[in-house]
Amino acid sequence: MQNGIRKLMEGHTLVPVVTFSNAEEAPAFIEYLIAQQVGCIEITLRTEAGMQAIELLKKEYKGRFLVGAGTVTSPEQLDKLVQINADFVVSPGLTSELQAEMEASKLPYLPGTSTPSEIMWAREQGLDTLKFFPANLFGGLDALKAYGQLFPDVKFCPTGGISKATSSDYLALSNVFAVGGSWFQKDFAK
Amino acid sequence: MQNGIRKLMEGHTLVPVVTFSNAEEAPAFIEYLIAQQVGCIEITLRTEAGMQAIELLKKEYKGRFLVGAGTVTSPEQLDKLVQINADFVVSPGLTSELQAEMEASKLPYLPGTSTPSEIMWAREQGLDTLKFFPANLFGGLDALKAYGQLFPDVKFCPTGGISKATSSDYLALSNVFAVGGSWFQKDFAK
Amino acid sequence: MQNGIRKLMEGHTLVPVVTFSNAEEAPAFIEYLIAQQVGCIEITLRTEAGMQAIELLKKEYKGRFLVGAGTVTSPEQLDKLVQINADFVVSPGLTSELQAEMEASKLPYLPGTSTPSEIMWAREQGLDTLKFFPANLFGGLDALKAYGQLFPDVKFCPTGGISKATSSDYLALSNVFAVGGSWFQKDFAK
Repeated sequence: MQNGIRKLMEGHTLVPVVTFSNAEEAPAFIEYLIAQQVGCIEITLRTEAGMQAIELLKKEYKGRFLVGAGTVTSPEQLDKLVQINADFVVSPGLTSELQAEMEASKLPYLPGTSTPSEIMWAREQGLDTLKFFPANLFGGLDALKAYGQLFPDVKFCPTGGISKATSSDYLALSNVFAVGGSWFQKDFAK
Repeated sequence: MQNGIRKLMEGHTLVPVVTFSNAEEAPAFIEYLIAQQVGCIEITLRTEAGMQAIELLKKEYKGRFLVGAGTVTSPEQLDKLVQINADFVVSPGLTSELQAEMEASKLPYLPGTSTPSEIMWAREQGLDTLKFFPANLFGGLDALKAYGQLFPDVKFCPTGGISKATSSDYLALSNVFAVGGSWFQKDFAK
Repeated sequence: MQNGIRKLMEGHTLVPVVTFSNAEEAPAFIEYLIAQQVGCIEITLRTEAGMQAIELLKKEYKGRFLVGAGTVTSPEQLDKLVQINADFVVSPGLTSELQAEMEASKLPYLPGTSTPSEIMWAREQGLDTLKFFPANLFGGLDALKAYGQLFPDVKFCPTGGISKATSSDYLALSNVFAVGGSWFQKDFAK
């Protein structure tokens, strides 16, 4: 299940979460990430430029950089992402309907969860690699420590309110394989 | 869907949440709200007097004041609220069963949600106007700011732990159309 | 429904949550609890020794001590717990599938819930005795006070981040019948 998201993300412990207002901005930002040894990006679909940036980067950085889509909530988005060959998709949360659609897309996917019941439902669907979101508002490190004991088979990518400074605390947990962060875009803008 | 709750609430940015121990107290409280330019009320069904107060106010203030019911969780409550012509209903949370019942009642309804997954499920049912509850315990302003970026089509009425002083911070957010508050009843009691 | 969990727990206001690395440690710990007038225990299935400890204690303390299982999330665990005659089961959260399995097991069960929507779904299944988890991360005392007004028929066993010092604040709430705590094991180890 989940079409290999955990394997795909191996070695990628930082996932910059980025919103572009113009797809043309994307290549310079990728170069900035490469210079920092970062090899993947989650481009949100909050702007129209998001889909365009993914398409552009998939052409320019084919096989050299993982380009995923964030804020995915609908089948229309998934259809388009399959067409342009996105590497993975990330959703803020998880519903039965969206899970079926993500599974059918055959794209690796990282679905958001917030509570133990949501995590347990995901596990029942065979999902063992989950986003924990919004991490800082739903218990942060303490919640992840507890979930590590309750759900030892599940690995998380906490996202939401994590800074460069706190990212290492999250990554130190054995059930955290990566963290999502928006600080890269802010730092780049400086 | 949702039978027009957003349109109904237009211009109503403060929703006093009130629990009456006696329906006779209700008219004086409505006069107090009118004097403050408040035009709607959510009367909880936590007491038997709640249903009686709604019925009484719907007769006395017909067309002059929006009278809704809060703490709605069962079809029996909805049947009675349809009979006495309540203007809208509010629930603490949302389930598949309750959503179907609220939709069938044809009453405008404002269902509670707490996590991204719960919000996404509500959107899949066509709901775009949600209560965010308990607002102060599930991320408050920070959560609503994030949800504004993730779900730009959804407008929220945060409720829970909001004071007169903090209400303006919530109302300043573009995805907040109103706030629910219990401070009116406390102020009135003074 | 729930096969009598509330009745079973009557008089048991403290539920030590314990993880054994060796089943042989269990009897001495039970004697320690008995000396403190505690009459029940939730042994987590986070270790293999957990199931063994339950089996051992059910033989040695038959009818004298309530021995439940925690961290229950699968039907395989339930089958085994029925065989060894566990007194009750506790889950971190609740899904439709797990609820059906727990109900079918005929074991008294205490399912975890975190949000109003999760509590409402549980009530729709006829459940009125719930774990509130992780208590300290999902609103703590404030959340329970609110849920007491919204769901007066539901009694909770908050668990997660509760200390000996704060347990009495929780137990003072009328909708709290017990609290789960991991401090017993830490104190015993001293």
